[in-house]
Amino acid sequence: MTDYRRLRVALLGAGAVGSQVASLLRQHADELADRAGARLELVGIAVRDVDAPREVDLPRELLTTDAESLIVGADIVIELMGGIEPARTYLLQAINSGADVVTANKALLATHGPEIFDAADQVGAEVYYEAAAAGAIPIIRPLRDSLAGDRVQRIMGIVNGTTNYILDRMDTEGAEFADVLADAQRLGYAEADPTADVEGYDAAQKAAILASLAFHTTVPLDAVHREGITSIDKQMMDAARHAGYVIKLLAVCERLNAPRPSRSGEAAYRDEISVRVYPALVDRAHPLASVHGANNAVFVQAEAAGNLMFYGAGAGGVQTASAVLGDVVSAARRHIAGGVGVGESTLANLPIVPIGRVTTRYQITLEVDDQPGVLATVAGTLSDGRVSIANVEQTVAGEDARTARLVIGTHKALEQDLSETVDRLAASGVVERVVSVLRVEGD
Amino acid sequence: MTDYRRLRVALLGAGAVGSQVASLLRQHADELADRAGARLELVGIAVRDVDAPREVDLPRELLTTDAESLIVGADIVIELMGGIEPARTYLLQAINSGADVVTANKALLATHGPEIFDAADQVGAEVYYEAAAAGAIPIIRPLRDSLAGDRVQRIMGIVNGTTNYILDRMDTEGAEFADVLADAQRLGYAEADPTADVEGYDAAQKAAILASLAFHTTVPLDAVHREGITSIDKQMMDAARHAGYVIKLLAVCERLNAPRPSRSGEAAYRDEISVRVYPALVDRAHPLASVHGANNAVFVQAEAAGNLMFYGAGAGGVQTASAVLGDVVSAARRHIAGGVGVGESTLANLPIVPIGRVTTRYQITLEVDDQPGVLATVAGTLSDGRVSIANVEQTVAGEDARTARLVIGTHKALEQDLSETVDRLAASGVVERVVSVLRVEGD
Repeated sequence: MTDYRRLRVALLGAGAVGSQVASLLRQHADELADRAGARLELVGIAVRDVDAPREVDLPRELLTTDAESLIVGADIVIELMGGIEPARTYLLQAINSGADVVTANKALLATHGPEIFDAADQVGAEVYYEAAAAGAIPIIRPLRDSLAGDRVQRIMGIVNGTTNYILDRMDTEGAEFADVLADAQRLGYAEADPTADVEGYDAAQKAAILASLAFHTTVPLDAVHREGITSIDKQMMDAARHAGYVIKLLAVCERLNAPRPSRSGEAAYRDEISVRVYPALVDRAHPLASVHGANNAVFVQAEAAGNLMFYGAGAGGVQTASAVLGDVVSAARRHIAGGVGVGESTLANLPIVPIGRVTTRYQITLEVDDQPGVLATVAGTLSDGRVSIANVEQTVAGEDARTARLVIGTHKALEQDLSETVDRLAASGVVERVVSVLRVEGD
Repeated sequence: MTDYRRLRVALLGAGAVGSQVASLLRQHADELADRAGARLELVGIAVRDVDAPREVDLPRELLTTDAESLIVGADIVIELMGGIEPARTYLLQAINSGADVVTANKALLATHGPEIFDAADQVGAEVYYEAAAAGAIPIIRPLRDSLAGDRVQRIMGIVNGTTNYILDRMDTEGAEFADVLADAQRLGYAEADPTADVEGYDAAQKAAILASLAFHTTVPLDAVHREGITSIDKQMMDAARHAGYVIKLLAVCERLNAPRPSRSGEAAYRDEISVRVYPALVDRAHPLASVHGANNAVFVQAEAAGNLMFYGAGAGGVQTASAVLGDVVSAARRHIAGGVGVGESTLANLPIVPIGRVTTRYQITLEVDDQPGVLATVAGTLSDGRVSIANVEQTVAGEDARTARLVIGTHKALEQDLSETVDRLAASGVVERVVSVLRVEGD
């Protein structure tokens, strides 16, 4: 057995992911040493309560409530506590005491990313966070490194397993949202308070991280437009299926090209970007439409590389632990190699446009009076609002046979134009009700 | 504009990929500088003939036939000449003169990888080769870094675009191999001499690279079992479709678990591996079945991460250039950060088993005499050979109504058992002809 240098690894948190990380670190010790070129010695695990029951058996002597003492002298600190504080304070302490840090904390990175990356840059440390964006799917390195010489045009990600599980079951079983959610809670796919998932907060955090990496810029969480899936009902699902679509909660990160001459005379790259999370119609032939259950996938369109897709489990303790351990090996290799952390170089501060500036296709479903001239009025209102119709279908008559349902597919339109036009339709005499307005993504 | 340090980049080769790399390096100069933290100065392009016509317009003053002078003093050398020599000599020169090197040369890495990696380790240089395994699909970093803390169990890759294009058209159009190949040659999807693609040599080189990374071991090219697709005909395609399969040329890298106690008392990881390339039946519901046209995909099964898939364009000048430029940015960041290359640490020298030791399911198609007792004889021969039958179908009678066709699906069997059993079937009186024996992958 090779006589490797030892690196001191401190683990903060022993929940679903942390306990798996601790277990794998010990179970694969020899293999990890050969991979990293260093023996990864788990020196302690900081927990809130050393006596709490745990799924995985951890050596009692490694557990401590004193995170700060553990951090001092560690070469690598793994933060898997979640939440903002005290995770933020501990990570900054670790960085300032010379450790490289590994974290899966998307909430922290989405809100305090710049502060943490700056602190690391100051001391030449490195921050690894492969597990923070799409669970076990390796997406951080591809975006940060593999595509660093390319220009990402758009990312469409299914980055929340809970909502994909719910939408997939609604689609395949024709079930209602509330019923599937209750079932998902029973099965452990959704939490007792599902807000973070079903309202898109979790996906928005991941979207901010993915957009920061893809466009090499700073994306504050509050610049991410966010809509959840609680308004999606069986009828919308059925209508989507009928039209050849499936509804997915998408994190969309898009470059809005604004070519103009730069000082160097080459094409400028300081475009605007849009970052948004919402349920959208996806064509059933699109690779994202086949992402079932709680799986995640990230579809990337890059200028030179073309279309790429990364698929896998988006969550789960042991799956996420895989991504964390990959980061730990990278951190160890860097420790052995020496040199400073490569940081993020100069970030482009690309403007992030509000949702009104975004352009997509739409599907508008209206309940209208079933009488002559109605379609002409609706079409005229859309045309006046600069919304061009691609197709119209009159699907079902109302129960009283007095109303009809119009499903209108539009060409690409500006969200602001669309939104104002829908308001005018709603206020017009002929529209009884705006049933739904859904964006169509994937062209 | 930030005042960056300049790094001298030398490019060897200006073919389909090289000319795109040269073009993108100049076109995206500002963005690449911000990404890399250094200005990437293309100091020269080594070509065989400076006057040869080129698809992309390159500045005449950068072209030279003197590769050796170009290499001296370069910080980063990009080798895109292809072939073994002089590429090998130049890469070693670059490494020994202190440069980091980027290459897309799969033939060179598959045959002389250890020599090149050792040379880099000696001087603390780094070798980047994202473009060598699956074109623009980022697969090297995921395998080398993201999954470094996990244990890859199996990789199934569609890693050759030409053969996937041919098989996909045979499947969707019911066309014959020779016709599609001729068409592919006309369209530029296949070369005038298609041997490297259709006989699986290209896929075998990529399989060796992927297996080396996934299992962190040395995989000599001649240890890769290789079969091409020239024997696949319309009838086999039709039969596969009928049975719910599609035929794909797969590169399979598999860990054959051999649990036994190691010195440290933990489970040993020094298993055996199998690396093989052959046309195989893939269930239509498997994600690999939906990889159409000249696209590539790599399906990875890892112990902790579960199933992952990476999908994208497998070839093409500009797509491959994207992967090369990602590597150039990584090399530049490492130059700025300092430190030595992290190399590959200690490689496990895992035994690579011959094809006879591999276990898969099979589909055997036989032409047999159409008379009583034949099925009993066939079943008995299989059973004696330790090949267990999962299902049998009698599909079509021969034209003379004297023979019948038997399609036999087996449970998992050892290749050596299967092969000997098929020989015995062929020699038995009742089997007129062994029509095909195909492996079934994807469980």
